[in-house]
Amino acid sequence: MGLIVMKFGGTSVADAERIHRASARALAAQRAGHKVVVVVSAMGDTTDDLLDLAKSVCTFGGREIQPPKREMDQLLSTGEQVTIALMAMAIHAQGAEAISLTGGQIGLVTDASFSKARIQSIDKKRMLDALDAGRIVIVAGFQGVTPEGDITTLGRGGSNATLVALGAALSADVCENYTDVDGIYTADPRIVPNARKIERISYDEMLELSGLGASVLQTRAVEFAKKYKVPLHVRNSQNENEGTWIVSETPNMENIVVSGAALKKDLIRVTVREIPDVPGVAARVFGAIAQANVVVDDIIQTLDREGNAYISFTVEHGDLHDIRQAVDGLVKGFGGTCHADYATDLAKVSVVGVGMRSHTGVAQRMFEALAQSKINIDNITTSEIKISCIIKRDDGPKALKIVHDAFELGGASGKP
Amino acid sequence: MGLIVMKFGGTSVADAERIHRASARALAAQRAGHKVVVVVSAMGDTTDDLLDLAKSVCTFGGREIQPPKREMDQLLSTGEQVTIALMAMAIHAQGAEAISLTGGQIGLVTDASFSKARIQSIDKKRMLDALDAGRIVIVAGFQGVTPEGDITTLGRGGSNATLVALGAALSADVCENYTDVDGIYTADPRIVPNARKIERISYDEMLELSGLGASVLQTRAVEFAKKYKVPLHVRNSQNENEGTWIVSETPNMENIVVSGAALKKDLIRVTVREIPDVPGVAARVFGAIAQANVVVDDIIQTLDREGNAYISFTVEHGDLHDIRQAVDGLVKGFGGTCHADYATDLAKVSVVGVGMRSHTGVAQRMFEALAQSKINIDNITTSEIKISCIIKRDDGPKALKIVHDAFELGGASGKP
Repeated sequence: MGLIVMKFGGTSVADAERIHRASARALAAQRAGHKVVVVVSAMGDTTDDLLDLAKSVCTFGGREIQPPKREMDQLLSTGEQVTIALMAMAIHAQGAEAISLTGGQIGLVTDASFSKARIQSIDKKRMLDALDAGRIVIVAGFQGVTPEGDITTLGRGGSNATLVALGAALSADVCENYTDVDGIYTADPRIVPNARKIERISYDEMLELSGLGASVLQTRAVEFAKKYKVPLHVRNSQNENEGTWIVSETPNMENIVVSGAALKKDLIRVTVREIPDVPGVAARVFGAIAQANVVVDDIIQTLDREGNAYISFTVEHGDLHDIRQAVDGLVKGFGGTCHADYATDLAKVSVVGVGMRSHTGVAQRMFEALAQSKINIDNITTSEIKISCIIKRDDGPKALKIVHDAFELGGASGKP
Repeated sequence: MGLIVMKFGGTSVADAERIHRASARALAAQRAGHKVVVVVSAMGDTTDDLLDLAKSVCTFGGREIQPPKREMDQLLSTGEQVTIALMAMAIHAQGAEAISLTGGQIGLVTDASFSKARIQSIDKKRMLDALDAGRIVIVAGFQGVTPEGDITTLGRGGSNATLVALGAALSADVCENYTDVDGIYTADPRIVPNARKIERISYDEMLELSGLGASVLQTRAVEFAKKYKVPLHVRNSQNENEGTWIVSETPNMENIVVSGAALKKDLIRVTVREIPDVPGVAARVFGAIAQANVVVDDIIQTLDREGNAYISFTVEHGDLHDIRQAVDGLVKGFGGTCHADYATDLAKVSVVGVGMRSHTGVAQRMFEALAQSKINIDNITTSEIKISCIIKRDDGPKALKIVHDAFELGGASGKP
């Protein structure tokens, strides 16, 4: 007996049949004695369809005009609203009681950063009243309202943010994240065929893996879960298998040196050279980058042979145009011999594990494995529980397999 | 210089191009110096698509289950929300400023009668602030919220109710109702080819015509307009022509004996005979009918040859199943020789005009015209400004033409 918040992503509610399957799962949990809150995304391609509609309206006189973000959120939030209403109907059709609630109706208040709003508070009273009345509560993910009542959306992975925020607000026993995969894997199974499903992983490890491109859970949702100690259970909506539990770190987790490996397939690296050596330079550089809305991956600052400072950082591909504009302006501002160069076609392979804290030789093992396969390492960055190597993009998939094997993460020869 | 509230129906906002055309019209009014509020419906077939979705979810185990009305309103209200966001984007793309507002965001509070809620109040502050800031305000028609924040819809013709309610709340100079026809006609032009567009008509006449099936404006919207003396202008969104003005009665309107004719094509008549002659019988009959959610058209109560009371009333076809259940139960309750019979295949032809108050011989002229064409009249009902005849359904279209001609309503030989 407890309180479960479960979330179904867009593919798990893509049509009437799937909505009924998700509803049946919520009902089964309720019949097992739990209070159940369900968070849902927009059905299947709904969000893309709405974006297409917006695009068709925002093309005028042959030009494409950026729509106001407030209006985009007003538009996109309808996707989840449709799903919650349909799911409440489906549960009703299956003979139980449900109530659908929008972000506004649960008082999920955010700041006014349309398209990437941050949750500020949730009014849990209405949900608790409905749960006490024996109802299943269906909440629209991805959306909130400003204190003025304007509808906001929470940005990429917003439904997971809603899931975890509700879990925290309602002191849920577990947040179940239903997806179309069986859980978190030791590496992307599309690249590493013998990748294994992880049973338990700590918030910190999951944070590193999410940041490294393991796409099931966004960094933000995991951070929130960690902060409020909400256990997360990532599982497959198409079967009853246990998935991966994301939980607080336990002492025996340290026995596992490396929990998973990840690959960012497509990076560019910007290097600003011969920067005048005055205080505040790094702040100026990354201030300009942030203003261009470019998300920086890794940062390396060091001195070249002549003793001049240079700053190198990586960015996920696709932002190249924006970043070039920002950096070229910056370099001009610095004057002198300062200049920038851009390396594209890079990738990053990483291993993650809380066991690194207490085990030695992890980095060496990784570098040796790559060296033996003649994969050149451009840059290295580390955290307490992560080692990353920047390599050539073409070496990416091979490098991931090699590292995965080097730490025996695979199903056949894997850890117990 | 004034305040205009304009409403665009679903066909006038069915795609990006039409949304831009409607936006251009709003902008033109703003550039002419007016403050502009726009009310919109859901795009084209959106509402039908949402109903289909609901139906697909509400079929379970081979049975079709009635969805909870609250959830249906939660679902349907997304249709208008999509349109307002797109229209605000379109106006932005055309270089002006707009803000979209849902029913909740303008504080359009209703009672909790989901699917047919009644407007209780509107908070005009947000709209006035936006107008003062030079923005065009785009409001979702057809929807409101309960004081608890649940989304309601206003029932059939709800967008027109929103139009007029906003006109009243904002003391608008005019409410423009854009449709795909040029205005209100002396009769349905699909049946009467020489029907003529009416230039001005009083609220009362429009009320009668709406109640008689002239479908452009619902009775409710006209009632509201009359109550708050909001001039309504029904016009075509595809051209710049003047449409029909619906306004307070003026003395010279009485010069026109009959303003329009209308046909209800498909009625059934229920007659309950040999009812025990005790007080409160009519209340019992129509209480039962109302409880079955059947909307009654005309009522006739009189005595038969033996001096027994009988009550006869008409209902629009399609409700026959519901009404039979209700009436059969009622008759059983009365006991004795009381029994009911049902006549289907009926129609009703009517003429409307405030001039009837001061002109004699109107009824006679109508009856004679029908008699000359050998159309039998089953029942007659009248109001101060209306005469209706129940006839056989097959005679309907012919009767409408005859009556239309008898009062010289047509374009060729019509009134000045």
